[in-house]
Amino acid sequence: MTWIDLRDDGWGLDNLPYGVFSTGGPDRRVGVAVGGHVLDLGAAARDLWPAMAGTFAEGTLDRFMARGRAVWDETRERVTGWLTDAAHERAVRPHLVDRDAVRLHLPFTVADYVDFYASEHHAANLGRMFRPGQEPLTPNWRHLPIGYHGRAGTVVVSGTPVVRPCGQRRTPDGDIVFGPSTRLDIEAELGFVVGAPSEPGMPVPMEDFADHVFGACLVNDWSARDIQSWEYVPLGPFLGKSFATSVSPWVVPLAALGRARVEPPVRDPRPLPYLDDAGMEDWGLDIRLEVRLNGHVVSRPPFAGMYWTAAQQLAHMTVNGASLRTGDLFASGTISGPRPDERGSLIELSWAGESPIELPDGSKRTFLEDGDEVVITATAPGRNGSAVSFGEVRGVIVPPRAG
Amino acid sequence: MTWIDLRDDGWGLDNLPYGVFSTGGPDRRVGVAVGGHVLDLGAAARDLWPAMAGTFAEGTLDRFMARGRAVWDETRERVTGWLTDAAHERAVRPHLVDRDAVRLHLPFTVADYVDFYASEHHAANLGRMFRPGQEPLTPNWRHLPIGYHGRAGTVVVSGTPVVRPCGQRRTPDGDIVFGPSTRLDIEAELGFVVGAPSEPGMPVPMEDFADHVFGACLVNDWSARDIQSWEYVPLGPFLGKSFATSVSPWVVPLAALGRARVEPPVRDPRPLPYLDDAGMEDWGLDIRLEVRLNGHVVSRPPFAGMYWTAAQQLAHMTVNGASLRTGDLFASGTISGPRPDERGSLIELSWAGESPIELPDGSKRTFLEDGDEVVITATAPGRNGSAVSFGEVRGVIVPPRAG
Repeated sequence: MTWIDLRDDGWGLDNLPYGVFSTGGPDRRVGVAVGGHVLDLGAAARDLWPAMAGTFAEGTLDRFMARGRAVWDETRERVTGWLTDAAHERAVRPHLVDRDAVRLHLPFTVADYVDFYASEHHAANLGRMFRPGQEPLTPNWRHLPIGYHGRAGTVVVSGTPVVRPCGQRRTPDGDIVFGPSTRLDIEAELGFVVGAPSEPGMPVPMEDFADHVFGACLVNDWSARDIQSWEYVPLGPFLGKSFATSVSPWVVPLAALGRARVEPPVRDPRPLPYLDDAGMEDWGLDIRLEVRLNGHVVSRPPFAGMYWTAAQQLAHMTVNGASLRTGDLFASGTISGPRPDERGSLIELSWAGESPIELPDGSKRTFLEDGDEVVITATAPGRNGSAVSFGEVRGVIVPPRAG
Repeated sequence: MTWIDLRDDGWGLDNLPYGVFSTGGPDRRVGVAVGGHVLDLGAAARDLWPAMAGTFAEGTLDRFMARGRAVWDETRERVTGWLTDAAHERAVRPHLVDRDAVRLHLPFTVADYVDFYASEHHAANLGRMFRPGQEPLTPNWRHLPIGYHGRAGTVVVSGTPVVRPCGQRRTPDGDIVFGPSTRLDIEAELGFVVGAPSEPGMPVPMEDFADHVFGACLVNDWSARDIQSWEYVPLGPFLGKSFATSVSPWVVPLAALGRARVEPPVRDPRPLPYLDDAGMEDWGLDIRLEVRLNGHVVSRPPFAGMYWTAAQQLAHMTVNGASLRTGDLFASGTISGPRPDERGSLIELSWAGESPIELPDGSKRTFLEDGDEVVITATAPGRNGSAVSFGEVRGVIVPPRAG
């Protein structure tokens, strides 16, 4: 069926995610991951599909993503053909690079970064902790996908060390003090990457989701809870989030997620028409995440239960006429399931620090310590019971630099 | 003193703001405004300063802004020399274009857009309206410059029509309805433009403000109050703001604001050391704005009284290690003075719609109607009692497009 050697580990022909890699030198190249390889797409196109060589010539996915769905679909078809048809082996094999030997880079230029808040369990857990004694969900939560803009300039690729942020916090005694965050946390999320832009003033309805969104990646939206809880009223999170947001280097195309698509949860009340997806294509996604802290699995957040889908989020984000640009990244919000071991943040896993997590080495964690490494992975259902891997988003906490 | 004809109207040699213009064709060029002219900086550099021609060759200020303060200062000195020394007249005059005949464009690529909330009067007024019965200022307000990230992709240049946004709102009866915003508002602000980037993980202290910030412009942060008030708890404003933010096309360099610098207000409590500017260079700015609605002055907001300076905002925005990029835009927040006719938004001027503004034609306004035009202008003190003009940021409201 294919001349290329595949390992049954999530990187088969039903995945074919896109990324940007280098091999020692400064040159960044667009690639497709397949098995243990990276196909150098620019080089392959120069030989096999010269009309597209320019699209893959820059060291980002930006041009390719901007081309739109027809080009994404045709590219996937061509690449699949190259990797399956033995007639292409001689031409393609020289453009394969060992996937373990490449350095991976931020795959696209992040235009605007928006973070949503679409897990009911996460929102309710945080409501209980941040606003005790009040209704856990704010009155708007079931009416619209709550979101806010984050800092695009500090989105970094997996592997980038995360410097512990400093900032203001209020102590339990009510003192306002400054220093390194003492409640540094993670948020395990899925991110959606906009390829095709939209016109100013023109909302993008849910049914156009797959025309604009190129693919998905993993996101760790690092959060300094002490900074966040002091600053966030009334204008939302700012410095508690803006120091770093990590993304996985491989963007899984929407076309690879066909088998993951499931019916989203029932919404009550029924959303306004622009958000009402009853009877429409399902954009619930059965993607399963794992969160590892220092190698130990601390959570398995299930994406399928998210209250709002990415299609609803896109429709909401643009319903006011806000336009999309190539490279817009919007993340789901922390993915937390109903079970305690499905929570996507440490503040939930340790219940605001009251119930520390115990690691196999006997150490305990409420929030992150310097040197801690967090790795988030995910898979979607693939062909014949195999998996489509999202790879990983990884980060190690390092202490603040001396001023 | 100068060979060039100047009008004493704010565009003298003490201003020399930078912008991007075109003259009919598609070519965008970097220019400096002086008197009734625009000096084509790329063309002039090719003749008179070839080493800098590449910096001005693109149709944005990006490259120039990225060069840093020494280059900004030298450029200002050179341009001043070209315009004052009669020996240069023959070489420079061919590169002057009639300022009334050019089309002006967004002068730089907006990287991240942050909006602050630095007017005590504005924050207190909005607190009284949005959170009646509670303390007008949230407990954190005097401890840190509250801010949030806005949408960089919908920052538009003055003159761009503003499409009335649609969205969800809650009616006084508690119904959740969808439709065009019925409370479309303005926010008169000053924006600061980052030129020189900073390193990830390295805070930018207040004393480095002028090394990173290239200049200032006017900002109208259009706001749909009905959308905003329903959505903003708990993660802050989103669709109530993200449809459009207008900026003036001329960026006034910090060097032109020397005579505007005044002592900022006394802060109580004294801020934490990283925000404590006592004994440091003053970055209060005596800049006076005027807001016109359909030609009629409805407000004269004074910038000098802003509680937090732009230097404090920059220090705060980076104290968590968040890095700066060339093109980062951070706005002051609505500028409102203590007097009713100094308020920088209609929600304050009409007190949430309870006290409509009367216009000279007899019509009344609480919020903006389709066809309304808002123009915000500003001046800073210049040489010998003259002014340094910021030009204007202008916008007309147009109805939503048919979906």
